[in-house]
Amino acid sequence: MTRKAIYPGTFDPVTYGHLDVIKRASVLYDKVFIAIAPNEEKFPLFSPEEREVMLKDATKKYNNVEVEIFNGLVVDYALKKSAKVVLRGLRMISDFEYEFQMALTNRKLNDDIETVFMMPNESYSYLSSRLIKEASKLGANVSKFVPKNVEKKLKEKFKK
Amino acid sequence: MTRKAIYPGTFDPVTYGHLDVIKRASVLYDKVFIAIAPNEEKFPLFSPEEREVMLKDATKKYNNVEVEIFNGLVVDYALKKSAKVVLRGLRMISDFEYEFQMALTNRKLNDDIETVFMMPNESYSYLSSRLIKEASKLGANVSKFVPKNVEKKLKEKFKK
Amino acid sequence: MTRKAIYPGTFDPVTYGHLDVIKRASVLYDKVFIAIAPNEEKFPLFSPEEREVMLKDATKKYNNVEVEIFNGLVVDYALKKSAKVVLRGLRMISDFEYEFQMALTNRKLNDDIETVFMMPNESYSYLSSRLIKEASKLGANVSKFVPKNVEKKLKEKFKK
Amino acid sequence: MTRKAIYPGTFDPVTYGHLDVIKRASVLYDKVFIAIAPNEEKFPLFSPEEREVMLKDATKKYNNVEVEIFNGLVVDYALKKSAKVVLRGLRMISDFEYEFQMALTNRKLNDDIETVFMMPNESYSYLSSRLIKEASKLGANVSKFVPKNVEKKLKEKFKK
Amino acid sequence: MTRKAIYPGTFDPVTYGHLDVIKRASVLYDKVFIAIAPNEEKFPLFSPEEREVMLKDATKKYNNVEVEIFNGLVVDYALKKSAKVVLRGLRMISDFEYEFQMALTNRKLNDDIETVFMMPNESYSYLSSRLIKEASKLGANVSKFVPKNVEKKLKEKFKK
Amino acid sequence: MTRKAIYPGTFDPVTYGHLDVIKRASVLYDKVFIAIAPNEEKFPLFSPEEREVMLKDATKKYNNVEVEIFNGLVVDYALKKSAKVVLRGLRMISDFEYEFQMALTNRKLNDDIETVFMMPNESYSYLSSRLIKEASKLGANVSKFVPKNVEKKLKEKFKK
Repeated sequence: MTRKAIYPGTFDPVTYGHLDVIKRASVLYDKVFIAIAPNEEKFPLFSPEEREVMLKDATKKYNNVEVEIFNGLVVDYALKKSAKVVLRGLRMISDFEYEFQMALTNRKLNDDIETVFMMPNESYSYLSSRLIKEASKLGANVSKFVPKNVEKKLKEKFKK
Repeated sequence: MTRKAIYPGTFDPVTYGHLDVIKRASVLYDKVFIAIAPNEEKFPLFSPEEREVMLKDATKKYNNVEVEIFNGLVVDYALKKSAKVVLRGLRMISDFEYEFQMALTNRKLNDDIETVFMMPNESYSYLSSRLIKEASKLGANVSKFVPKNVEKKLKEKFKK
Repeated sequence: MTRKAIYPGTFDPVTYGHLDVIKRASVLYDKVFIAIAPNEEKFPLFSPEEREVMLKDATKKYNNVEVEIFNGLVVDYALKKSAKVVLRGLRMISDFEYEFQMALTNRKLNDDIETVFMMPNESYSYLSSRLIKEASKLGANVSKFVPKNVEKKLKEKFKK
Repeated sequence: MTRKAIYPGTFDPVTYGHLDVIKRASVLYDKVFIAIAPNEEKFPLFSPEEREVMLKDATKKYNNVEVEIFNGLVVDYALKKSAKVVLRGLRMISDFEYEFQMALTNRKLNDDIETVFMMPNESYSYLSSRLIKEASKLGANVSKFVPKNVEKKLKEKFKK
Repeated sequence: MTRKAIYPGTFDPVTYGHLDVIKRASVLYDKVFIAIAPNEEKFPLFSPEEREVMLKDATKKYNNVEVEIFNGLVVDYALKKSAKVVLRGLRMISDFEYEFQMALTNRKLNDDIETVFMMPNESYSYLSSRLIKEASKLGANVSKFVPKNVEKKLKEKFKK
Repeated sequence: MTRKAIYPGTFDPVTYGHLDVIKRASVLYDKVFIAIAPNEEKFPLFSPEEREVMLKDATKKYNNVEVEIFNGLVVDYALKKSAKVVLRGLRMISDFEYEFQMALTNRKLNDDIETVFMMPNESYSYLSSRLIKEASKLGANVSKFVPKNVEKKLKEKFKK
């Protein structure tokens, strides 16, 4: 039996925290599908396509990981991929509450899909795409938080 | 002595969680006034009038419950209705903090009005108007979360 | 219709935080029954009878408040007193979680009894019977935290 | 590849919350090993052997679930069973913090073992072995919280 | 050795909570620099210059406190002022998580700058610039929450 | 003006988390006094004298740090040392609430003493003396969590 998991998120942009979860998931599951939510209504910094390029680049070393843009219900995407598991990284309490609500809502929408939580390495527990964007905008060197190609893309966005 | 309570909120839209609090409140108080805050600056999905129609429909079985739109301070509304109690539902920690701030701020504005917290049934503890709107927008069946007439209204909003 | 509430707790000893909740409750309900849980297995500092004396003394100014020792289920005590409401003070998050569990457990035991939360004045939000006992034991002046007669009793306990 | 998980705990006694996690885990993993921690220093109500009997009885319908007493490090037990996953149920914030600490500590002890969190059904989110024991001791009917055989055992313990 | 600290924030507008932290900080440090973050992307109610005027007025009694607008990284501002300490007020849990993320992010950007947390007086623990603005907009008297000159400015903003 | 701080705790035993706070504090203050609370009523594993030896050994490299056993109120110890600051490390939410209560209680006992919070490195955020003792008791190698001499002492304690 093939154990598949999906890992949905906005990834605007991908951080070392996300990548730590992906690395761990690639060991626990036969196949991991990363689903990029476009989330256009929240005015992301990067287009879904830009985020896809960065994620594909950062995960190319894992041959059981796939990256896709998906605009729909997470449970529908899981079904489409015949995955039983939705993976989410848990860093902090504030994550936890929102994740709880989403997971229970998803369970009501489809009780065959299970949300499962993993923790990134504690070294990445404080990473937040939002703070990284704010710091980068103000000129910070963010090389400790994101891969090189993401750092470069951030610089380009904030260069005038 | 008549025990009156007001239950203020945005109700965009009303969920089974709100309705569970209303049901419990209608037993504990002689009169419950539901005050819909227009909250236009947060770009609600439904107009105050649409929300009022949905709430009236969903609470018509309680003859000591009244629904109104009120644009002002919660403590002023309580005063106007000669209610001593402001009711709020508590589901989660994140609620709690914001509720705490609001309740203490209200107490400073008028110390005669007491904020009192109730818990919805645990089956509704995860319900969030925001998540329901997001799920509905993506095509989910939200009949487990909101009354039938609200479900219909949500579908209409998101149909193009 | 008479609105009765019970306010259960260990009260080892009563603090200004408890008394603030009692004052507010005495306005909102026709009758408030304070139920002292003996809690002997937690090795309280004061006997249930000592706690009863201190509470009666501190609440004698409210003529709709009664104090009793009760060793049993909170929902049974509420039933016995024909009270529909169990009152609890909420100060902090850590309270909140335990209170949540208890309230939902009590609801399963008897769905006619509603737990309702109130907040003490923010000036008492940090008060904890346990910290007061620790401070008093180490010689602190605790007159800002507890009534005079409680302060005296604490001194007696810790005098050798 | 066989996906094995261990589910460690005190289970003093097993509740419907634990059983909901076990049911979900039995679908996601090929084999689930339940490891009962004796935890004698916390004065459990039931002996490890009593807890084992109750758990075996309650899980006999799952043929990929095994129950054992294990007195040692969780990561060593995982290793012994060649399981890569330690399962934990997450109900509330207070769980979360302690679980976080344990999971990160375990990761330092053995980085090949991954802690993975699942949520019980929201109907069991408030269940706590401790509160159930307290309620049972005070004479409550706890049949909504634990299986029949556990309820019977609780009654026997608290009968004098 | 001169002990300098910076106290960064949006201060839209300054409240008695901020001022309590400033008062305490002015005792602990030889010099306190208040750095106003313009935060234009969050559509503040007051311009950075208006906020500066209000803060200068409210802190003129402390002769070791200086107020400035600073648009950049907090760690760069600390460096510029040769301050080793970034001060932040902690009121509630929700503060805490975000503050944690920021402090750890700042530490990665410059490990010589230490974030240090202080608590305002519990009487101000519930104060939130956002709630004060909402209340003022709805006509509330906010004189218990902000200095007189701020109250006046709020009234002017919301007068049409 | 000499800036002195005290850092009180049980330190049963000292961990790399405590030591990280001490290292940071030794930079920010002219003098840091570590005050070991005997805490005999909580049945510590190590005697106050054993804890003092371990702490002195682990902090001997800082020449502005002193270690002492102190059995009394923290604010009295601060006064005795003419220190204006009580330092505490904040790791997690659960810390935070208890710390809040203690800090506000201490402020009432002496308003001239300020509690100031620092964060250990995120690599130590999960460390808990209690979990380390439990793991060590079960045979774990705890060299990643505590200094060598503490590890040795733990082994001796748990050897039979």
